[in-house]
Amino acid sequence: MKLTELELEVLREIKPKPEEYELLHRAFNRVREAVARELERQGIEAEVTVQGSLAHDTWLSGDRDIDVFVLFPKTTPIEELRGKYFQVLVNAVASIGEYELRYAEHPYVRVHVNGVEADIVPAYKLDSPSEVRTAVDRTPFHTEYVNSKLTNELRDHVRLLKKFMKSIGVYGAEIRVKGFSGYAVELLVIAYGGFREAIKEISTWKPPVYINTLGDREKFAEVAKKLREKYPESVVYAPDPVDPMRNTMASVSRESLAKIVIAANCYLNNPSREYFVEKARTAPVAELLRSIRDRCIVLLELGIANAIPPDTLWGELYRIADRVSKVLANHEFYVLDYSVWSDEKTMAVIALEIDSCSKTYPRLYRGPSFWIRGRAMDFIKKHIERNSYGPWISRRGELLSLSKRKYSNVIDLLIDRTWEYLVAPHFKNAKPLIYALDGEALTRITSNREVHSWITEFILKRPDWMEKCID
Amino acid sequence: MKLTELELEVLREIKPKPEEYELLHRAFNRVREAVARELERQGIEAEVTVQGSLAHDTWLSGDRDIDVFVLFPKTTPIEELRGKYFQVLVNAVASIGEYELRYAEHPYVRVHVNGVEADIVPAYKLDSPSEVRTAVDRTPFHTEYVNSKLTNELRDHVRLLKKFMKSIGVYGAEIRVKGFSGYAVELLVIAYGGFREAIKEISTWKPPVYINTLGDREKFAEVAKKLREKYPESVVYAPDPVDPMRNTMASVSRESLAKIVIAANCYLNNPSREYFVEKARTAPVAELLRSIRDRCIVLLELGIANAIPPDTLWGELYRIADRVSKVLANHEFYVLDYSVWSDEKTMAVIALEIDSCSKTYPRLYRGPSFWIRGRAMDFIKKHIERNSYGPWISRRGELLSLSKRKYSNVIDLLIDRTWEYLVAPHFKNAKPLIYALDGEALTRITSNREVHSWITEFILKRPDWMEKCID
Repeated sequence: MKLTELELEVLREIKPKPEEYELLHRAFNRVREAVARELERQGIEAEVTVQGSLAHDTWLSGDRDIDVFVLFPKTTPIEELRGKYFQVLVNAVASIGEYELRYAEHPYVRVHVNGVEADIVPAYKLDSPSEVRTAVDRTPFHTEYVNSKLTNELRDHVRLLKKFMKSIGVYGAEIRVKGFSGYAVELLVIAYGGFREAIKEISTWKPPVYINTLGDREKFAEVAKKLREKYPESVVYAPDPVDPMRNTMASVSRESLAKIVIAANCYLNNPSREYFVEKARTAPVAELLRSIRDRCIVLLELGIANAIPPDTLWGELYRIADRVSKVLANHEFYVLDYSVWSDEKTMAVIALEIDSCSKTYPRLYRGPSFWIRGRAMDFIKKHIERNSYGPWISRRGELLSLSKRKYSNVIDLLIDRTWEYLVAPHFKNAKPLIYALDGEALTRITSNREVHSWITEFILKRPDWMEKCID
Repeated sequence: MKLTELELEVLREIKPKPEEYELLHRAFNRVREAVARELERQGIEAEVTVQGSLAHDTWLSGDRDIDVFVLFPKTTPIEELRGKYFQVLVNAVASIGEYELRYAEHPYVRVHVNGVEADIVPAYKLDSPSEVRTAVDRTPFHTEYVNSKLTNELRDHVRLLKKFMKSIGVYGAEIRVKGFSGYAVELLVIAYGGFREAIKEISTWKPPVYINTLGDREKFAEVAKKLREKYPESVVYAPDPVDPMRNTMASVSRESLAKIVIAANCYLNNPSREYFVEKARTAPVAELLRSIRDRCIVLLELGIANAIPPDTLWGELYRIADRVSKVLANHEFYVLDYSVWSDEKTMAVIALEIDSCSKTYPRLYRGPSFWIRGRAMDFIKKHIERNSYGPWISRRGELLSLSKRKYSNVIDLLIDRTWEYLVAPHFKNAKPLIYALDGEALTRITSNREVHSWITEFILKRPDWMEKCID
């Protein structure tokens, strides 16, 4: 389907400029030469390749990261690949820029060359995806597949869909986002045939969503059924064409799914530049302060002691936030919304919106069913001793009692029960700073621009793109 | 089982004294003579009988009501029974005291004779319960059955169980109570063999409860199954021995069931006089005032314009109270407990305990599932126009929005939406007086002693007998 004037205009902005291509290719060449030289020096046979969005030519203007895969013969023992050979790669890049060792499923090394971030990954050079041992071995096949399917026109459609997803916050398979990987976006454009086609299809999605990335309908139906069993928690199923028993969209959360479906409907309803903008709105402190009047927003600030891999960090922070919600609900404080921010290095902040910061009314306690005699007697005893109002028997025959709350203020509760929600390994003994958001705190935290835009969205709630949903 | 010292002591108090027997029998004789004379004068054949607890000799000291059934030949057409012959009964009693015409399933006349209230009921004299046309025709068979089963000792056990039930508020089949009729109590004592035996059995009841009032186990099993189908809402099933397809305990609510089961357990745990006392506790206003601090108790006072039969009145009042609870819940005000009081003549009061009288925090609105596209768009539109915080998409993929409440104060809500809960026919256009209970209101309403004890129980919640549950 043809792109609209708006989409063409966006495309002109997001397509990388010639000088950007030059910058990235120069960076790749530097890495390749350094690595190749070192390999040769050591007499090791391997091929230095570029992968990912640069190799697919689906990257966006402004992107400054490249994936360099060093492919070793499949006869190489895995211990050597990850040990001695990996060390060779590290030595090779040490000479060209600042580097850091990283680890996902596989070790890799990140090096900074002229403002470009290059991840150098050791993997196997294989003849067929059936020989894949770890996820990274699959990457060269993805490049091959994508390049065999994408025309230059479709590459632009991929760029538009990526930008659209970035703008609404569903781009990226990492735990922080739980959205669509770059490869997933490419598969969507290939499967649906273009940007607008994809948006139209997405606007009708209802979980569980099945995307035929295989072509053959019978084959797909069979695979989909198996994927459903293998990934019972997924909300979107899209088999990997190079390895069909893998769901390329297993990373997509229900939240991301809901976001993209609603955004697709909004976009079709009222197309606008807002869907291709990643600007981070920051509202003036005075406006934020006005907006939190009569609301209860509580922040938990957590220090990060040692470096934690981002996926681990975000996983733990969300786990803590979920846990806090449950602990508060046990005491009849209800978390209406929460959000997590972190610089991924020194600190993290969990923001909680609670139905009320203070509950001075007594609390209703529900006893056991009256025919569970022992427990019913215990309930009566406990509440007589507590000097409750009650117990009494309700119209429905329930044993009820009204009693003073253990915590009438949510801050006291949160300070008192950290042990109950700081359950994630890296924060077990953390001493969070806990406070209700007020003018002073707002002024302090908004001095950090990233925090400012994060808390702006948390307070005002409505995403920028949603403003444009209705004409 | 032998009665305990406590029970024997209670029995001495609740057994009618000889002068009470004399009083009631004299009243019956006056009615009988007046009616018989009038019937004879008109040449009508009929038998004047005493029924109910006086005939069963299971009444309590202090009772001042008798049931007089005038039994006509079964050949009498029903229109005559309820028309001309009923008029004869009315004329007969008009001469002996103040009377009022009443109507249940059947018309009857109530006359006051020397402080005794006599209900005179026309019915048929039948040979077998299978000929029964209306409920009242069954009564003579109940008397026959009960008197064939009860010894004088068991009659005392019936008195104890009645008093026990009165004390905890589950005696009476009327809508106000939804408890056990006098006949039901007699059947319990007959079926279980005594007061203590009944209490022991009751303490183990779990709904649905089946009571073998028929003796024959196979017959009972068969009847119970059919009763279950005929009375799907019942919580206690006890076939009427004189008409097994009738459930004599259909009137028992889940609330009454829970009360008697818990009270039976408490009594076995710690027997005490409290279980045989109908005293209505009244706490000093100062204590009540202290107890309602930090609570939200709202009263609705309703005037009663025209006389309404009690069962109709209480049915309507409870219906209104249920409805109020639902209306308030729609606005996130939760009724934790309610109670109704009425003098059954001029006024009724509904008391509501609410989780909070005022909610100034914005309210969380939940939108439709994101895949219901039209409704999701409408939700977004509505909340953008309302200037809500949101909509936004939650971690669970729900469409949510925070918005100002329509009512932040429950009194405003109740005053504004009477049309939504004054749904009962006799109160459709009522103008209730609605207010939060405070010192001034407490002082005013407690000038009525009945209201004082009612509001005392509503505020302090725990029934007197439950105080004694634990030793």
